Amino acid sequence: MKAAIYEGNKRIRVGKSEVVSPKAGEVRLDVAYCGICGTDLHIFHGNMDSRVKIPQPIGHEVSAVVADLGEGVDGFSVGDRVAVRPLLFGEPTAFDKGFQHVGKNLKFIGIDLPGGMQSSWTVPAYTLHKLPKELSLEHGAMVEPAAVAVHDVRLGRVKAGEWCVVIGGGPIGLLIALVAKEKGAKVVLSEVNERRLELASTLGIEVVNPVKSDVVEFVRRASEGAMADCVFEVSGSAPGAEVMTDLPNVRGRIVMVAIHPQSKQINLFKFFWAEIEMIGARLYEEQDFEEAIKLIADGKLAIDRLITEVSSIDSVQQTFLKIDSNPDGIKYLVDCKR
Amino acid sequence: MKAAIYEGNKRIRVGKSEVVSPKAGEVRLDVAYCGICGTDLHIFHGNMDSRVKIPQPIGHEVSAVVADLGEGVDGFSVGDRVAVRPLLFGEPTAFDKGFQHVGKNLKFIGIDLPGGMQSSWTVPAYTLHKLPKELSLEHGAMVEPAAVAVHDVRLGRVKAGEWCVVIGGGPIGLLIALVAKEKGAKVVLSEVNERRLELASTLGIEVVNPVKSDVVEFVRRASEGAMADCVFEVSGSAPGAEVMTDLPNVRGRIVMVAIHPQSKQINLFKFFWAEIEMIGARLYEEQDFEEAIKLIADGKLAIDRLITEVSSIDSVQQTFLKIDSNPDGIKYLVDCKR
Repeated sequence: MKAAIYEGNKRIRVGKSEVVSPKAGEVRLDVAYCGICGTDLHIFHGNMDSRVKIPQPIGHEVSAVVADLGEGVDGFSVGDRVAVRPLLFGEPTAFDKGFQHVGKNLKFIGIDLPGGMQSSWTVPAYTLHKLPKELSLEHGAMVEPAAVAVHDVRLGRVKAGEWCVVIGGGPIGLLIALVAKEKGAKVVLSEVNERRLELASTLGIEVVNPVKSDVVEFVRRASEGAMADCVFEVSGSAPGAEVMTDLPNVRGRIVMVAIHPQSKQINLFKFFWAEIEMIGARLYEEQDFEEAIKLIADGKLAIDRLITEVSSIDSVQQTFLKIDSNPDGIKYLVDCKR
Repeated sequence: MKAAIYEGNKRIRVGKSEVVSPKAGEVRLDVAYCGICGTDLHIFHGNMDSRVKIPQPIGHEVSAVVADLGEGVDGFSVGDRVAVRPLLFGEPTAFDKGFQHVGKNLKFIGIDLPGGMQSSWTVPAYTLHKLPKELSLEHGAMVEPAAVAVHDVRLGRVKAGEWCVVIGGGPIGLLIALVAKEKGAKVVLSEVNERRLELASTLGIEVVNPVKSDVVEFVRRASEGAMADCVFEVSGSAPGAEVMTDLPNVRGRIVMVAIHPQSKQINLFKFFWAEIEMIGARLYEEQDFEEAIKLIADGKLAIDRLITEVSSIDSVQQTFLKIDSNPDGIKYLVDCKR
């Protein structure tokens, strides 16, 4: 019963996972795998110390097996294999308009509350999604990031035959490219890391390195002048925010996936001139988890190619340091089984 | 047969209106009134000399009477009263996706081609919209700017009961506020000019001066915390582009109406966090003209209150100078009847 406990200042200690008995409406899980997200790296670097209660187990990309049921929990049995949608819905407000996943009082489990990078984890039953038999627990830890990508592609209203450009080829960018491709879109990925470009290329995605080529000209040639129907800004970079408005065609969409902590210089004229649209997309809704599970179970997202390494929770500190020093890696999973 | 001919460098000469016989598919008009648009002011100031062929009659907010029909023109008769949708559609491209009103090869009549501030004007028949009997020719000159507002509100998907904020209270901002109000929205107008605020207030619009009050707090109080479902940025100003992202609620929309020639610092994080959307809106489509005509004919847009002055084409130079020196004015019409 181990837990990866963030202690501040780039320190993650392996401590004891507290077994918390499930209250009414809750479920206790035996966690199998927990992926390491960019957000976990931000926590590791101390950028989210205002939200995390140190010391605290972190992690939120979880696959698990149901171990214990609280009162009144229907639809789940001990032994069920699940993925967790790590959102604790808060009191609704008029501002939210019913969208609980981005509501004002939302709490994110794994940041605002103890996370799932531990052997035992207790969460509300409504956060759980059952995994079908053909979906392994390793792949189950990829459902959460895949659901982000499904949500982004859904909000981008991507249709078959459209040209999509994904700016930024980390785990979420690659998953967006793969989900959009599954929708029948023609996808170009713009990314500076050559190893990631190689990977994307072998997955059937057209790739361009913006340091070496003019992305706008590349897309113009590829699309025979039609340009992009949908652009995903996943880089969080100033060059990404600049080029994103040069790519869409008339009524083209830009999906703002990345977190840009600082304001950026944006060419608003382009929005006016070609009636471009920009759509913010954050996290996921229930239906996105269900679609992500189906896509992974059907083998559509090349999940094995995206998992760089699976390592024991005992070496979690080293794993975080390794991610910091290896820009070529994609997704690292932590084995949390006791 | 007079014409207001732009000669460059803040000079508009009153010259002779050339009577151009209509070719096949064209119609010759006896122009009644032509409104002066912000774009005409830009031309006057020399900011659009790269597009205007000096000397050239300008103007594009026109009401007129059909004077002569070219070959093959159906559906119009001499004597019909019309408004003109001043768009010459170009060869379609893949980039346009069928949206001719913002197509790559679109030409704007009155900028790229001779305009309607003249007694006789010849245009394609497809640009004409008939005016119903109850709509005066003076009001007919307001159809074009009203169609801009209808287009903006339509692309903003404004619904009854929603909170809208319009940033900038010139002619287009006021018309947007009035059209949104007609849709059943609750509208707040943010504008720095006190005379315009007074006018808007008497038209039943809630008003706030951003120089004197905190617009975000004003909207928060007015909406009891719900904030704006739709924000129209019509100011073209840096403060407008800054505050626009502070106003929308979850999945709120920002309609980018203004022309921002320079890039602006934009808070992209807000888009991500509350899944805000920004929609560029330019010009109008056929249906917007039809809706604008109906709204004006039904007396819904307080057109008489928006017309500051009607003056003869003989004094057009003085009128342009007057507009430059009177920030309180709204819409100036030029009487072009011979």
